[in-house]
Amino acid sequence: MKIVIIGGVAGGASAAARARRLGEDAEIIVLERGQYPSFANCGLPYYVGGEIQSRDKLLVAPVEMLRNRHRLDVRVRSEVTQIDRQNKTVQVRDLNSGTEYAEPYDKLIIATGAAPFKPPIPGIDSELVMGLRDLADADRMHQLATSGKQRAVIVGAGFIGIEVAENLRHRGMDVTIVELADQILPPWDHEMIAPMDHKLRSEGIEIRLSDSATAFKEVDGGLQVELKSGDTLAADFVVLSVGVRPENRLAIDAQIECGSRGGIVTNEHMQTNDSDVYAVGDVVQVDDYITHEKIQIPLAGPANRQGRIAADHIFGRSSSYRGTQGTAIVGAFGMSAAMVGQSEKLLRRAGTTFEKVYIHPSDHAGYYPGASPMTLKLLFDRENGAILGAQGVGSKGVDKRIDVIAMAIQAKLTVEDLEEAELCYAPQFGHAKDPINMLGFVASGVLRGDHPVTQVDRLPESPATGGEVFLLDVRSEAENSQGHIPGAHNIPIEQLRDRLDELPKDKPIAAYCQVGMRGYLATRVLMHHGFDVHNLSGGYKAWLLYHPA
Amino acid sequence: MKIVIIGGVAGGASAAARARRLGEDAEIIVLERGQYPSFANCGLPYYVGGEIQSRDKLLVAPVEMLRNRHRLDVRVRSEVTQIDRQNKTVQVRDLNSGTEYAEPYDKLIIATGAAPFKPPIPGIDSELVMGLRDLADADRMHQLATSGKQRAVIVGAGFIGIEVAENLRHRGMDVTIVELADQILPPWDHEMIAPMDHKLRSEGIEIRLSDSATAFKEVDGGLQVELKSGDTLAADFVVLSVGVRPENRLAIDAQIECGSRGGIVTNEHMQTNDSDVYAVGDVVQVDDYITHEKIQIPLAGPANRQGRIAADHIFGRSSSYRGTQGTAIVGAFGMSAAMVGQSEKLLRRAGTTFEKVYIHPSDHAGYYPGASPMTLKLLFDRENGAILGAQGVGSKGVDKRIDVIAMAIQAKLTVEDLEEAELCYAPQFGHAKDPINMLGFVASGVLRGDHPVTQVDRLPESPATGGEVFLLDVRSEAENSQGHIPGAHNIPIEQLRDRLDELPKDKPIAAYCQVGMRGYLATRVLMHHGFDVHNLSGGYKAWLLYHPA
Repeated sequence: MKIVIIGGVAGGASAAARARRLGEDAEIIVLERGQYPSFANCGLPYYVGGEIQSRDKLLVAPVEMLRNRHRLDVRVRSEVTQIDRQNKTVQVRDLNSGTEYAEPYDKLIIATGAAPFKPPIPGIDSELVMGLRDLADADRMHQLATSGKQRAVIVGAGFIGIEVAENLRHRGMDVTIVELADQILPPWDHEMIAPMDHKLRSEGIEIRLSDSATAFKEVDGGLQVELKSGDTLAADFVVLSVGVRPENRLAIDAQIECGSRGGIVTNEHMQTNDSDVYAVGDVVQVDDYITHEKIQIPLAGPANRQGRIAADHIFGRSSSYRGTQGTAIVGAFGMSAAMVGQSEKLLRRAGTTFEKVYIHPSDHAGYYPGASPMTLKLLFDRENGAILGAQGVGSKGVDKRIDVIAMAIQAKLTVEDLEEAELCYAPQFGHAKDPINMLGFVASGVLRGDHPVTQVDRLPESPATGGEVFLLDVRSEAENSQGHIPGAHNIPIEQLRDRLDELPKDKPIAAYCQVGMRGYLATRVLMHHGFDVHNLSGGYKAWLLYHPA
Repeated sequence: MKIVIIGGVAGGASAAARARRLGEDAEIIVLERGQYPSFANCGLPYYVGGEIQSRDKLLVAPVEMLRNRHRLDVRVRSEVTQIDRQNKTVQVRDLNSGTEYAEPYDKLIIATGAAPFKPPIPGIDSELVMGLRDLADADRMHQLATSGKQRAVIVGAGFIGIEVAENLRHRGMDVTIVELADQILPPWDHEMIAPMDHKLRSEGIEIRLSDSATAFKEVDGGLQVELKSGDTLAADFVVLSVGVRPENRLAIDAQIECGSRGGIVTNEHMQTNDSDVYAVGDVVQVDDYITHEKIQIPLAGPANRQGRIAADHIFGRSSSYRGTQGTAIVGAFGMSAAMVGQSEKLLRRAGTTFEKVYIHPSDHAGYYPGASPMTLKLLFDRENGAILGAQGVGSKGVDKRIDVIAMAIQAKLTVEDLEEAELCYAPQFGHAKDPINMLGFVASGVLRGDHPVTQVDRLPESPATGGEVFLLDVRSEAENSQGHIPGAHNIPIEQLRDRLDELPKDKPIAAYCQVGMRGYLATRVLMHHGFDVHNLSGGYKAWLLYHPA
């Protein structure tokens, strides 16, 4: 058995190591275009920023280890230029010597990954416009960031854009992010990313939304970045992070089937339309675990799993890939945003019937020092309670809650199962009613009709008294006076039962409090008295997410 | 509808609040023997230790809030002395006035909790021997710990014993723990608690295992604690934490059925043998979620859920309690130990067929600063891979992994599902292959026979070369020279394939490395060459758990 793997990072490296464990006799050749296989690509921004001080730390599996420990024939600086499926060979160019040779395979694994997208903008080929994909990129950016350069412009506010922004800021640089969308981190829902947006700005990062670069001009050793808005930014260098595209050229040239977004099509065993050719990682298209749609989503965890699965199948095992949930997290300046599953915008686009709830718990019991707030949003099927997605943002404990929900989604649980979750509790770690339980309680209450909710984005534009909806603020007068939704009528929950005559019977009432708890109680009280009432999910804090200062 | 609830903490408070939301017209009376309903009992040790500075923080739902917001008739210092099921009344004693009265009910909820067990030891009724159950206890202990007292003896190394030990140490006291078992935290498996034991001792706490108090003698304003071992300890006061017993006297007197361990027997709706009487929280016996055995386990999360369920059922809903998983965590000096499900000792006692694996991951990617090690142990069914339990110990990220496994157990997933878990990954939060995935990989490999394992506690007592098992250390020579299992033969994994002639074909080989990864690879290599080989699960680090310095 001779296995050739194109690409030695993440999926390719996992496939190689797994293949060795399953086939001690197999000949396994890893062809890596770059200088290093199996480097820590998710660590690159932190090396640029100095959080990771030693470059060696990024070399998680050095060539020598792969050769000596796993007996892998790892060939770096080796670029595959062509796949010849008829003859079952790949054409390899040694980038050091320039020589070319054909390498035969019994089974081929394509793990070429995805490359930063370069939109056709004048000047984009300047050496000062760079992506951050590999160690060579990181070395260059590191060198620039530590050589007195002051101004960076980051085009694109995705994961890498945000991580690079944080790290260049750590280096003391002036950083401006330019993002085409009207929000940073487009995979998240707009309102859920407001705290991260605020955090970045408060750390001195300039964010320009709904704008884009139209030209890069080299001037005096730096760049002028011209924007669609008409403004011009001066930069010592530009970091491009406007998404990635699957590196599918080899596959296309070899007539290996690709999907509409360019990802290689595979079956559940990661086999392409050629049963001797597999593909794994960012270069493949995958099934969305929830919707079963074909998606293209670059994530390290799925890449590693797919690598294992391809190797398994080559050695006669039936392992299969179950699809991608899209579990992801990004951190900056001590804040994190995490998500799993479908976003609200995706659900809307697909016309799915869903409901959503917001809660604003602390990461651990409020009575124990150091508790810090987060916001969680849960999206679920309004008919059967199936969990469709979740997002979280906050300083601590967000990753834990999204991980638990990721496991619940994997198990196809419902919001009612979240009510019953039994999680670790001591006051420094969580709550007797964990945020996961609270999400379950709130969403299940909605599902069962106990607890009708409305949403900030369903309120009429100007909900002043006399409008379509009677807005009822059930917080204390002190809280109300510190900020409230325009037009709201304030009756503290403690007085509500005695002041029912102030409420209209002929129009819907939207009750709200700070986070949704007292609003829920108010909703129950008013339902009992025959009012048409809904609780504003997530309360005033949710309203602030939609209306940041 | 008139609902009377005996006990206003955790389960009782949850039942009351839920009942109000479901029944706005209901009369709801909460009879609380103490001064405060709904206080943060899990916070008491941290108030004693000064971590929680303000006593008010412990009063999570003050009486006024319960009265005004939820319209609950909360009566504190009100002790129920008798339940009269025939007449559907409870006899209440007002502890302030001393007066008694009968209070009728339509539905009764018993939420009396559990009281610290007081073994029949001479002198145990001394005022200087105290438990830590309520605010009055905490006030006394706080007063003693801040008034120059120097020496505390803690009898019992369970949750509260460990938490109080940490907190009294924070106050600068000399603390000795006396524990009857041969380990601290008896619900955990012995080896898994070794790092916590080490941590406590390194922080200056004296731990005396396999010993117990036989008498307490008041001497010079303090106590002499006589031990079974013959030693005598001097103490300014003693904290008793040798477990709790359900406060079932009212139930027994009223012929409400209790189980063999004293807990009130209920159906899944928390109804006792009297359909108008419910019981919730630490006073009830519950079903173990995995084994379906009847157990008695005091936990805040289940108590709260049960309170909700009882209220639900009173209002005609079919909510039911699904059993307790036993998810628990304890922290001290920055270290945490968490567990869920069955322990190995429980599985052994029940004669269950199980296997176990150990891994020693870091909480996040090793190449990102601040990664800290943990140990995870997974117990699973050797036939079908069902997850039976898990334990973790470390400084960071243990709660997250146990929570994810708790969700997996709730969903009745198998170890193969853990392989496929898709969790948050960025280098400061986790790993591309999260510890959850690693547990899945290792356990599934064992399940499928790819990866035969042996265990430290299955090795022969003296596995010297020439003994029953050939012990093979595949770590580097440098690692081996810093410490190894006695009698092991060292062949670094990189040289293994070339030194097969040093290995015996006629006896079993146990291969090990530092954590189990290289041992796994060695096992695969040697299996291929026809050796009878097992990987020592968890490697040398697991051996150290069983043989702490």
